[in-house]
Amino acid sequence: MTKKAVVLVSGGLDSATTLAIAKEAGYDCYAMSFNYGQCHQVELLSAKTISESIGVVEHKIVKLGLGDIGGSALTDDSISVPKNSSAEIEEGIPVTYVPARNTVFLSLALGWAEVLDAEAIFIGVNAVDYSGYPDCRPEYIEAFQTMANLATKKGVEGKLIKIKTPLIHLTKAEIIHKGNALGVDYGQTLSCYSPDEEGRACGKCDSCRIRQQGFADANIPDPTCYSQS
Amino acid sequence: MTKKAVVLVSGGLDSATTLAIAKEAGYDCYAMSFNYGQCHQVELLSAKTISESIGVVEHKIVKLGLGDIGGSALTDDSISVPKNSSAEIEEGIPVTYVPARNTVFLSLALGWAEVLDAEAIFIGVNAVDYSGYPDCRPEYIEAFQTMANLATKKGVEGKLIKIKTPLIHLTKAEIIHKGNALGVDYGQTLSCYSPDEEGRACGKCDSCRIRQQGFADANIPDPTCYSQS
Repeated sequence: MTKKAVVLVSGGLDSATTLAIAKEAGYDCYAMSFNYGQCHQVELLSAKTISESIGVVEHKIVKLGLGDIGGSALTDDSISVPKNSSAEIEEGIPVTYVPARNTVFLSLALGWAEVLDAEAIFIGVNAVDYSGYPDCRPEYIEAFQTMANLATKKGVEGKLIKIKTPLIHLTKAEIIHKGNALGVDYGQTLSCYSPDEEGRACGKCDSCRIRQQGFADANIPDPTCYSQS
Repeated sequence: MTKKAVVLVSGGLDSATTLAIAKEAGYDCYAMSFNYGQCHQVELLSAKTISESIGVVEHKIVKLGLGDIGGSALTDDSISVPKNSSAEIEEGIPVTYVPARNTVFLSLALGWAEVLDAEAIFIGVNAVDYSGYPDCRPEYIEAFQTMANLATKKGVEGKLIKIKTPLIHLTKAEIIHKGNALGVDYGQTLSCYSPDEEGRACGKCDSCRIRQQGFADANIPDPTCYSQS
């Protein structure tokens, strides 16, 4: 008896690790990515590569007019992505926060999970290195689960779709250790908020710096391809 | 001091009434509709007409690849919309149910509300004539509210975005009475699941039949333009 899971795959390190964990747990995985007008569309190529590499039944890229809504440096060209020269990671909720992003993504995953008759949705949220995003906290995920149980035809019939967050309490170094043990090729992933046209990471944005620190802390060589600038 | 609300406007009778109620309550209204691959795209024209007629600051139509997910007669051409010849309204959860639709729509409204610094989201869900959709029930809306409070930057800062459902306990006749008193031109709205190419209602699907019964019960003339077939 196969069991199915929808896995949200952004092309980054966390979601690649999450996909590998779902796969190892015995799920037939259905990867889901979003084309939401992100300035760094090259991450969708990473999502495709890593999904094929780890092995999924299907990889669906859903178009989403999130860019129409604005309000984030990741979707709105008029807000620039900060590149810190100091060693500090930005405090508070960053301008790279996309309004209600995880809620929108989880909602669409919920819809697909219902159609597939899947029993789980995997999302690589992380409350440790979460950069101040409110929708990465355990209490948020619990509230989404409660809502999801009431929202769906499956839920009404007593067949709940479980929201799985295997990374939520791990440090970046622990995530990298876990993925490394599962054979994830992190060279195929892209975490950078501001990659160049060839898809190379900038090495300077918050996301790059958290990732670099993670490899350093894990004592694992960083396979990331950085731009020379 | 103006107050802003995002109002979900489908082009149907319920959401038009909801928009009129939000307007009467003194909100600057931002209408939001979705182009999600619905077979009856003509409803977006109704959404535009009714938004302009009632008066909104902006009407945003967000593209959404919901049709890619399938699983509903409203987005999937391989499932036909049922037209009952008997007097009975279909029981249980109908095939016209779109997976997680209200969750997806409310999530995107939440994102826009956050960007606009709006204090409310209006949605015309109805638990009386709700046709068996799980995401129209009060307990679902309450769970969404709890989740939304935890999901957003505004929520973290203590400024909650209130989900308003003014129709939730009204019968279709009561909704029509309310909208009529507020001057809603229901001739501009479209409730039909299966309109013809000129945007005329079929008069036979569940949605048409509930609407017709509503006008009859309200003892108000039905201004709907039905196809001749």
